[in-house]
Amino acid sequence: MNSGLKVFAPASVANMAVGYDILGFAIDGPGDEIIVRPGKSPGLVIKQITGTKKKLPLEVEKNTAGFAALKLMKHLGEETMPIEMEIHKKMPFGSGLGSSAASAVAGVFAVNEFLKSSLGKRDLVKFAVQGEQIADGAWHADNVAPSLLGGIILIRDNESLDLVKLPAPDGLFACVVYPHISVLTKDSRAMLSDKVDLKQHIAQSGNLAYLVAALYRLDFDMIRRSLTDLIIEPQRATLIPHFYDMKDIALSNNALGFSISGAGPSVFALCENSLIAETVGEKIKALLQSKSIENDVFISKINTTGAFKF
Amino acid sequence: MNSGLKVFAPASVANMAVGYDILGFAIDGPGDEIIVRPGKSPGLVIKQITGTKKKLPLEVEKNTAGFAALKLMKHLGEETMPIEMEIHKKMPFGSGLGSSAASAVAGVFAVNEFLKSSLGKRDLVKFAVQGEQIADGAWHADNVAPSLLGGIILIRDNESLDLVKLPAPDGLFACVVYPHISVLTKDSRAMLSDKVDLKQHIAQSGNLAYLVAALYRLDFDMIRRSLTDLIIEPQRATLIPHFYDMKDIALSNNALGFSISGAGPSVFALCENSLIAETVGEKIKALLQSKSIENDVFISKINTTGAFKF
Repeated sequence: MNSGLKVFAPASVANMAVGYDILGFAIDGPGDEIIVRPGKSPGLVIKQITGTKKKLPLEVEKNTAGFAALKLMKHLGEETMPIEMEIHKKMPFGSGLGSSAASAVAGVFAVNEFLKSSLGKRDLVKFAVQGEQIADGAWHADNVAPSLLGGIILIRDNESLDLVKLPAPDGLFACVVYPHISVLTKDSRAMLSDKVDLKQHIAQSGNLAYLVAALYRLDFDMIRRSLTDLIIEPQRATLIPHFYDMKDIALSNNALGFSISGAGPSVFALCENSLIAETVGEKIKALLQSKSIENDVFISKINTTGAFKF
Repeated sequence: MNSGLKVFAPASVANMAVGYDILGFAIDGPGDEIIVRPGKSPGLVIKQITGTKKKLPLEVEKNTAGFAALKLMKHLGEETMPIEMEIHKKMPFGSGLGSSAASAVAGVFAVNEFLKSSLGKRDLVKFAVQGEQIADGAWHADNVAPSLLGGIILIRDNESLDLVKLPAPDGLFACVVYPHISVLTKDSRAMLSDKVDLKQHIAQSGNLAYLVAALYRLDFDMIRRSLTDLIIEPQRATLIPHFYDMKDIALSNNALGFSISGAGPSVFALCENSLIAETVGEKIKALLQSKSIENDVFISKINTTGAFKF
């Protein structure tokens, strides 16, 4: 049996406190592994999905990885190419860490490599976004783009997918905590007010723009001052038990900032070195355990690679 | 008679399309000249104001330049130092080009130089902001900071005056047009809705953050894509006759973007070279003249010097 072509797409943290729907970064560790090999009948077939208790569809058109890959195959005029796909989820589902984005990215990236197409990663973003869209209904690249391209990604406009990779300071570490509770992205979106105070808009824009400048200047003090979400976090924090206790732990242990990863329930702290990130992770883990909340802690540099082929 | 110490503070363009209250840049040409020399009696005295038809107060406490300088003198424990000040306005008043900011900056900068204080330009921002505040009632540095420091300034937070100077690409030129009509900043502020749609907030923040990245990358195409104001300009454009005709002229002649300078009535185009800026300026001037609207056109690189001593 052909051992196949194996790729990995990492988990990602969307919003990054001040960039709702337009900022995200990739992390090391969790993610999706996908293997593709020549199939026996025309077209794409998903043979196997492992690593998740949730029953994900094997039907290509209903599976984020399958749908994204199929869109690419059609674009390349290769929809009848016989391809078999295995999906091995190596990250929690529904965690707010871009699980469907990682699937879509891994699917499209694997098939693109398999077909030896001339398309580069930047060309693949729109296919991966289409894959993620069937999972969560929204058209946005704040998980897909970092998972595919790596790094910290700023999306000027989700419609046209006009985006840019921002510099990530070498010492920048994320401590990501996934408490095993359930938050539905749909609910998490629906609870947001569709209006923002002009004053909040000005303050939040100032923080976001300053964060971008801080990243180009590799200036941790500037990053620290800019990581305050005045708009989304206050509305969503109630969905996450002990959110403000965790935030207190992070900030009092010298994290640069702390907020919700995507729609939650995962949370993250950004830190200027691994020691701070590890300390924050241990203390938050202890808190959650004392409340009998199962959890996973991931300590990671900003992953600047994104999807890769083994 | 002592010929005195002479300084100049340039005019500035606040908001820069996508950074309402938090972005601004300085231009060459118009501005305020202030001369200070030893006085005959204790304290600051304004002897003369030239260059404006509007009667500006000679009373130090009521004059933006005087008040800013006085705040500095008090801070330095030098409020009884005999100083005479002359203010020569070399820019239009009420134009939306930061006339009061230039006065406040020139006043505080001149007195700081005169007193040979150890304070640097960054330390002077707060005194100049206090001066401007007595003119327009608002506490913000989007004109004061560029006039003082030069360049393109991003203010994270006006309250704490946490700000950063952004890179300005060498070829970047502004074409600034002042149509001689009257727009009161107060009215221009009052007409703005105090709410913003969440979608508009996301799109405008994306443009602003992308503009910051574009400036660090010195990328004119990115600048072009980011210079669209979805929030303020649509509300204020009605105050400025022929605004959209001028904008059409600018964009169809290859300007990177076009919007309102501060609260208006001045407008500006950003351009990737001086030829485009001059062409845009000539064509807008011709339009306004055909409508019998007197106007001034200023063509300028981004002024990266700010206030200076002759």
